[in-house]
Amino acid sequence: MRTLKLALAYDGTAYAGWQVQPGQRTLQETLEAALAKITGETIRVTASGRTDAGVHALGQIVSFNTESPLSADIFQRALNAELPDDMAVLQADEAPAGFHAIRDAVRKRYRYVLHDGPVSDVFRRHQSWHYRQRLDAAAMHRAAQALLGKHDFRSFESAWPQRTSSVRTVFEISVCRGLLGDEDLIALEVEADGFLYNMVRAIVGTLVEVGRGTRPETWPAEVLAAQDRRVAGMTAPPQGLFLLRVEYNQ
Amino acid sequence: MRTLKLALAYDGTAYAGWQVQPGQRTLQETLEAALAKITGETIRVTASGRTDAGVHALGQIVSFNTESPLSADIFQRALNAELPDDMAVLQADEAPAGFHAIRDAVRKRYRYVLHDGPVSDVFRRHQSWHYRQRLDAAAMHRAAQALLGKHDFRSFESAWPQRTSSVRTVFEISVCRGLLGDEDLIALEVEADGFLYNMVRAIVGTLVEVGRGTRPETWPAEVLAAQDRRVAGMTAPPQGLFLLRVEYNQ
Repeated sequence: MRTLKLALAYDGTAYAGWQVQPGQRTLQETLEAALAKITGETIRVTASGRTDAGVHALGQIVSFNTESPLSADIFQRALNAELPDDMAVLQADEAPAGFHAIRDAVRKRYRYVLHDGPVSDVFRRHQSWHYRQRLDAAAMHRAAQALLGKHDFRSFESAWPQRTSSVRTVFEISVCRGLLGDEDLIALEVEADGFLYNMVRAIVGTLVEVGRGTRPETWPAEVLAAQDRRVAGMTAPPQGLFLLRVEYNQ
Repeated sequence: MRTLKLALAYDGTAYAGWQVQPGQRTLQETLEAALAKITGETIRVTASGRTDAGVHALGQIVSFNTESPLSADIFQRALNAELPDDMAVLQADEAPAGFHAIRDAVRKRYRYVLHDGPVSDVFRRHQSWHYRQRLDAAAMHRAAQALLGKHDFRSFESAWPQRTSSVRTVFEISVCRGLLGDEDLIALEVEADGFLYNMVRAIVGTLVEVGRGTRPETWPAEVLAAQDRRVAGMTAPPQGLFLLRVEYNQ
């Protein structure tokens, strides 16, 4: 038995999220069907984290066990031939025995894309949140720095029954206008040792209140301290969110 | 009776091209339906040129006559509320009496996007041609310069019954790697006083033969001189093509 590790990109628009759900088209089920076709085995994959319906990935990490003798390179090519064109395997590698894509993850990085031009961008409508008011990205960046470090982030967590702790450490957070040279695109990027359910989207929904001027730059720090989801901003819509990369110690 | 002029962006993926065709969903018909809903009139629009199925626009120009008293700004807002989210009105202006979006156009600019990374880009699959071999963009740029100026471009024209002349003047043509900061994206841009049917796509299909090394940099000049479509390269697929802008004298 070997363990393989895949880096995946996907456009989540057409999927009901990562996780297998009866009667729904999901990313996990689509990948597992392709693996079954290639290996003849029934393979269960583990992702570094589940992404919700409409959320995208540029570097989701997935692990699985197989008896197949195919090389990692052949797995990559065979999967890319088999998968629909909104999913792609960017890399495939042998993983150390016992590697587990959730348990062994030590850092994750997400990007959230906002488009605040006056007219909707027809090419980014499924990959950004069109915010109809101009935002002050620099104020959002300054306000976001209050979230750096180790905190209880329960103010930014949607209800989720399985977590044991809502303490996480944010290593980096930035808000920057001009993504891809486009002055109407704002990217929030945040890197942490882990994320609570809907945490990035709740952070974005809070920071836009600063960006549009209805809350002061000091407000996100107050939200964090309140430890109460009801005081934070809205949960930003899913289509602006991208899982950028996942890091492992081994 | 007034004449209005619209600048449109659209993602052509879901449309059978610009022109109204029975039983097909087209961009023209979608725009005319929105105008009918807003004005109560039956309005026929004229575009600077028809784009084919799957082709996009960042600045298509459309003109139409109306008896409506609504201001150009209100037309823009009402249309953007009415149109599906893969079409957007970027600008609306009063046009001089008798303005005609085809007849009065003096220059057009197109972009064609190639993606030559090893793995398909899930976010650009409908907005680029994924070319599985690495291309020499600098060689393509040098080779393309032979097309500058006034020539008979019939070697780059698909059969089209209505044209009266195949002589056109190319004012600028460039091939550049690194579009939007992505080293796997190549953009060809070409500006001319007009284009023959499928001309940009035939130019791209010819230049990639240079880019992949199967033809020398002098070959596009030979293709031009041959005045025979059969000697040129293939017609590149539609999804990489964008109508960027149209210029008018008035």
